[in-house]
Amino acid sequence: MPSRRDLANAIRALAMDAVEAAKSGHPGMPMGMADIAEVLWNDFLRHDPGNPGWPDRDRFVISNGHGSMLHYALLHLSGYDLPITELKRFRQLHSRTPGHPEAFETPGVETTTGPLGQGLANAVGMALAEKLLAARYNRPEHPVIDHRTWVFLGDGCLMEGISHEAASLAGTLKLGKLVAFYDDNGISIDGEVEGWFSDDTVKRFEAYGWQVIPAVDGHDAEAIKSAIVAALDDEDRPTLICCRTTIGYGAPNKAGKEVSHGAPLGAEEIAGARKLLGWPHAPFEIPHEIMAGWDARLAGGMRSKEWQRHFDAYARVYPAEAAELTRRLRGELPEGFAAEARAYIESVQAKLPEVASRKASQQAIEAFAPLLPEMVGGSADLAGSNLTLWKGSVDVNTDPARGNYVYYGVREFGMSAIANGLALHGGFLPYDATFLVFSDYARNAVRMSALIPAPVIHVYTHDSIGLGEDGPTHQPVEHLASLRYIPNNELWRPADAVESAVAWQRAIERRDGPTCLVFSRQNLVCQSRDADTLSAVSRGGYILLDPADAKVEAIVLATGSEVELAMSAARQLAGEIGVRVVSMPCTSVFDAQPLEYREGVLPSWCRARVAVEAAHPDYWRRYVGLDGEVIGLAGFGASAPAPQLFEHFGITVEATVAAIRKVVGR
Amino acid sequence: MPSRRDLANAIRALAMDAVEAAKSGHPGMPMGMADIAEVLWNDFLRHDPGNPGWPDRDRFVISNGHGSMLHYALLHLSGYDLPITELKRFRQLHSRTPGHPEAFETPGVETTTGPLGQGLANAVGMALAEKLLAARYNRPEHPVIDHRTWVFLGDGCLMEGISHEAASLAGTLKLGKLVAFYDDNGISIDGEVEGWFSDDTVKRFEAYGWQVIPAVDGHDAEAIKSAIVAALDDEDRPTLICCRTTIGYGAPNKAGKEVSHGAPLGAEEIAGARKLLGWPHAPFEIPHEIMAGWDARLAGGMRSKEWQRHFDAYARVYPAEAAELTRRLRGELPEGFAAEARAYIESVQAKLPEVASRKASQQAIEAFAPLLPEMVGGSADLAGSNLTLWKGSVDVNTDPARGNYVYYGVREFGMSAIANGLALHGGFLPYDATFLVFSDYARNAVRMSALIPAPVIHVYTHDSIGLGEDGPTHQPVEHLASLRYIPNNELWRPADAVESAVAWQRAIERRDGPTCLVFSRQNLVCQSRDADTLSAVSRGGYILLDPADAKVEAIVLATGSEVELAMSAARQLAGEIGVRVVSMPCTSVFDAQPLEYREGVLPSWCRARVAVEAAHPDYWRRYVGLDGEVIGLAGFGASAPAPQLFEHFGITVEATVAAIRKVVGR
Repeated sequence: MPSRRDLANAIRALAMDAVEAAKSGHPGMPMGMADIAEVLWNDFLRHDPGNPGWPDRDRFVISNGHGSMLHYALLHLSGYDLPITELKRFRQLHSRTPGHPEAFETPGVETTTGPLGQGLANAVGMALAEKLLAARYNRPEHPVIDHRTWVFLGDGCLMEGISHEAASLAGTLKLGKLVAFYDDNGISIDGEVEGWFSDDTVKRFEAYGWQVIPAVDGHDAEAIKSAIVAALDDEDRPTLICCRTTIGYGAPNKAGKEVSHGAPLGAEEIAGARKLLGWPHAPFEIPHEIMAGWDARLAGGMRSKEWQRHFDAYARVYPAEAAELTRRLRGELPEGFAAEARAYIESVQAKLPEVASRKASQQAIEAFAPLLPEMVGGSADLAGSNLTLWKGSVDVNTDPARGNYVYYGVREFGMSAIANGLALHGGFLPYDATFLVFSDYARNAVRMSALIPAPVIHVYTHDSIGLGEDGPTHQPVEHLASLRYIPNNELWRPADAVESAVAWQRAIERRDGPTCLVFSRQNLVCQSRDADTLSAVSRGGYILLDPADAKVEAIVLATGSEVELAMSAARQLAGEIGVRVVSMPCTSVFDAQPLEYREGVLPSWCRARVAVEAAHPDYWRRYVGLDGEVIGLAGFGASAPAPQLFEHFGITVEATVAAIRKVVGR
Repeated sequence: MPSRRDLANAIRALAMDAVEAAKSGHPGMPMGMADIAEVLWNDFLRHDPGNPGWPDRDRFVISNGHGSMLHYALLHLSGYDLPITELKRFRQLHSRTPGHPEAFETPGVETTTGPLGQGLANAVGMALAEKLLAARYNRPEHPVIDHRTWVFLGDGCLMEGISHEAASLAGTLKLGKLVAFYDDNGISIDGEVEGWFSDDTVKRFEAYGWQVIPAVDGHDAEAIKSAIVAALDDEDRPTLICCRTTIGYGAPNKAGKEVSHGAPLGAEEIAGARKLLGWPHAPFEIPHEIMAGWDARLAGGMRSKEWQRHFDAYARVYPAEAAELTRRLRGELPEGFAAEARAYIESVQAKLPEVASRKASQQAIEAFAPLLPEMVGGSADLAGSNLTLWKGSVDVNTDPARGNYVYYGVREFGMSAIANGLALHGGFLPYDATFLVFSDYARNAVRMSALIPAPVIHVYTHDSIGLGEDGPTHQPVEHLASLRYIPNNELWRPADAVESAVAWQRAIERRDGPTCLVFSRQNLVCQSRDADTLSAVSRGGYILLDPADAKVEAIVLATGSEVELAMSAARQLAGEIGVRVVSMPCTSVFDAQPLEYREGVLPSWCRARVAVEAAHPDYWRRYVGLDGEVIGLAGFGASAPAPQLFEHFGITVEATVAAIRKVVGR
């Protein structure tokens, strides 16, 4: 029977060999954390390689994602559908073993990591998801949701600010089933960390209310095991296990040094490591008894089947709960949601309410959230400004069983990455919120929502100089364009209460990526629409107004608060110039419409185009070309009452009228 | 003689009255921190209201920048050129009292704050600047640089991740002259913080190696004074003074509650506060004896003049040091820098080195840094990848007197905001670095570099799918456009070693804002240029190639690694289609050229335009319009060797040739 060390060495060998074959990659972390991973996976991890989607599986996240080969080795060895041929194709085009772990690319990879610190925050989201589902759905004798979240992290993760935000909140939320392993190897890319990272990490995490198990020998299986047992013992606090490890453990010359971190070890060093580790096998060859020692398929299959039996029993006693939980875990909306949404949108259109779109957003949440127990909201300490609370909001920290609202505190980045984790876990449709300008703080997590992809709704209010006196630090200029350019991100900037409701519906129904909902601080006129126009809103761009009894000579595109301004300009020119107004709340959804539809809205023959948006103008060249005009703001805003700012920066009806005259030449 | 409380109440009254007059703003923090500010400013702060630019003044930063009225009140009361009329125009257009403090708008405001946590990081940069200048220039008996950095911060700052990055590094760097006051009022916008912020902050900052003075009564002048004395006593560690305060102190009903944070108190509450505080004076009226109690002009003037005498004495003994220090503090480059830079650039052009532009960047640093002791570099733990170290690099932590390199650790946001602080302090030209994709982590600090403005150079390497195997988490797509859209930000993406050197020169010479220098991981061909072409590089966009003996029929614009691809396409079509290649390393500098120059490069009559950039294509519609073609990448990248990725995503010579054929129609 192979020793624990032999089992761990299989990881080391695969990591060395795959990185060598790829001529790039990171052998140091897998070799350093192999012993920890071996103990965790073989003695504790509740999973089923044959059923990676099993809802009650433990979640395992590598926050130091450059150690991807550790994960691929674990998945291969324990019996997931990841054959050795895939490991041989590490970091190659179309392989299932990309350079950093990517969710949905590889069975068993729970999230996409690499950008440091975010895996920890994703794990906090997953642990929170487990806690909330357990509190809501478990019944005496029926703990149908009962799993843990395990996360590996390194010095880099701990230096990143997001580790503070995520760990602090995890402590406050008492996520007792979250266990983090700190790969305390003393090395980061620039060398020995003591010169730039001298935190007392034990003390720091104790300050967050975590259980901290210090100074565990990360190469001693028994010590690791004891630490994990202690972690399991404490159900009230998340646990950080600090493991002293040697980066590149086993490499005769490079172990303990930065050189083992992010480059192939080289043939000679690998040969030396094989000798030192007592691993005589050829590259990518794993002896049968080692494979057998790792194989988790039988035990995993029994575990997941046993859970299914328990769940079936639960479903017999609590059919409604079981049905709802099943629906949520599948990510399906309740039957009839679309119809109810349509009815709500029609009722808003009929009422023509003149409200700030942030208020319209809150009203939409109020209308939709009662239908959707999976909606879990929150704001980075701006609930009263973002208007993210609704009548049914319950703090997850006070009442987890009914909880659907997270008081995230002033932690935009952590919030967004935690929301990604909630979505990835399953069972939740998270929405988070801050001011649009502070999407900057969360920016890479929004990118990750799109890349993973995770259906998260990012609510951003105070969307332009229209926020007024708070001034240029709070006034977005480049943010609309910057968020639209994130691939697979959908951004809606609704013009009124109707478009706000449609945007919310689209965001809720979206399954393959995030949505940014961008709302105004100030009141917006509600536009009238006939039934056809109303149904066109969801196409992202549509004709809001066409000249009565005249041909179209110019087209004005606008979004959000500037739509009414475009309408006023068109009205002012009525009878003189035939102006079409196109409301374009979501450019990417419009771009995805069939050519025929797009041509119907923006016909190629009409180059007399004007775009109006209180944001960076250059974005709109995509629609108005070189012959059109754009009214926007290329510089920073200023501190003053909003109406004065629109005047001051020339985002006005007069300017729009002048631009229209210019493009039609009269 | 007025009591200390009377003096502090002047701040409270001004804050209440100005917010009331503006009908918006934040009275809570100024009323809560008034007593602390009073003690600090009247008993400790080394400043001169008549000479706000005095180099050896203490730096005072409000990281919780919504408390701007505290700062404006302090400046007005102590005698800065900020008359009461300006306070009456709080938050109005063209006033010098914007909603959040803005550097260069108001005398005595050291940095622009509001985005939480960044003021702390700016202060860390300022304290580091002081330490480095003192170590380098002070001589026995001549401590010409000897001042402190004081920073106010709130719960919001402490929840933000950047507080972790900045405080952790400040501890490591032993910034003993940095003193932070934590406004521990238990309240944030969502209400009582205990529900979302339960850190043991004392323990947390001790873990960073700070001196922490806990539980100071922030309304007891003597207690505050003792705490500050203790802070001054410890010269090795930064100090955090935790002050228990009441938000909105003095407001009879709103004190201690969130409602006092961010909205006018209202006439009735203000009347009640006046009564409670014993402040019978009319709005904006400060009795003479209170003004006299605050007036710091005489003492300040004596202090700064005494310093000038000391400095003059120093200059007599150490003329070279004094001259260099003076030049640095004025932000002037050494005489002859431009000529040396030109000579270097010409030498690179002559050699035609085929290197990665990140390598060319390092060579440029190597050439320029010996001339510029003010250059202080660093990287977020990617020195060996960003190539930011040069032969003369010395760790600031090991040898402050010679130090010019900060090992920032994996702290992109903290790094960039610290760099802003270094620049704001004066005496430094900071450059920082990370991978382009991780500019996301630092994004709002880059925005702040532009808004402040702070001449910081942000070096971003690994600028496209050209980085290869690390995959989509590491491959920028939207980042070039997103950074270009930040107002007042200049972004250079050089095509070769020559453009890299020019970009560095421009960045070094720029005084009114930041520069992002974007470099490749992979090698780039060096283009040939005659003297005229070489001199045109600094215009941001220029003709690199025109058809020989043929008229221009199509224009290809490209940047960075795609320039050679455009050149190949043009060469391939030579004799068949007249193709001009425009290299456009910096679009904003090109846009700022006279119309005549721009027309010379991109003549309006030529609409047959193609842009090639391995990034989001839509940005280029600004230059190619609706009739042109763009070759780029609108989706995420992938993990594979770089040459395969360019093939896979169709960013190739063939695609460029096809696009050129398409736009010319043959």
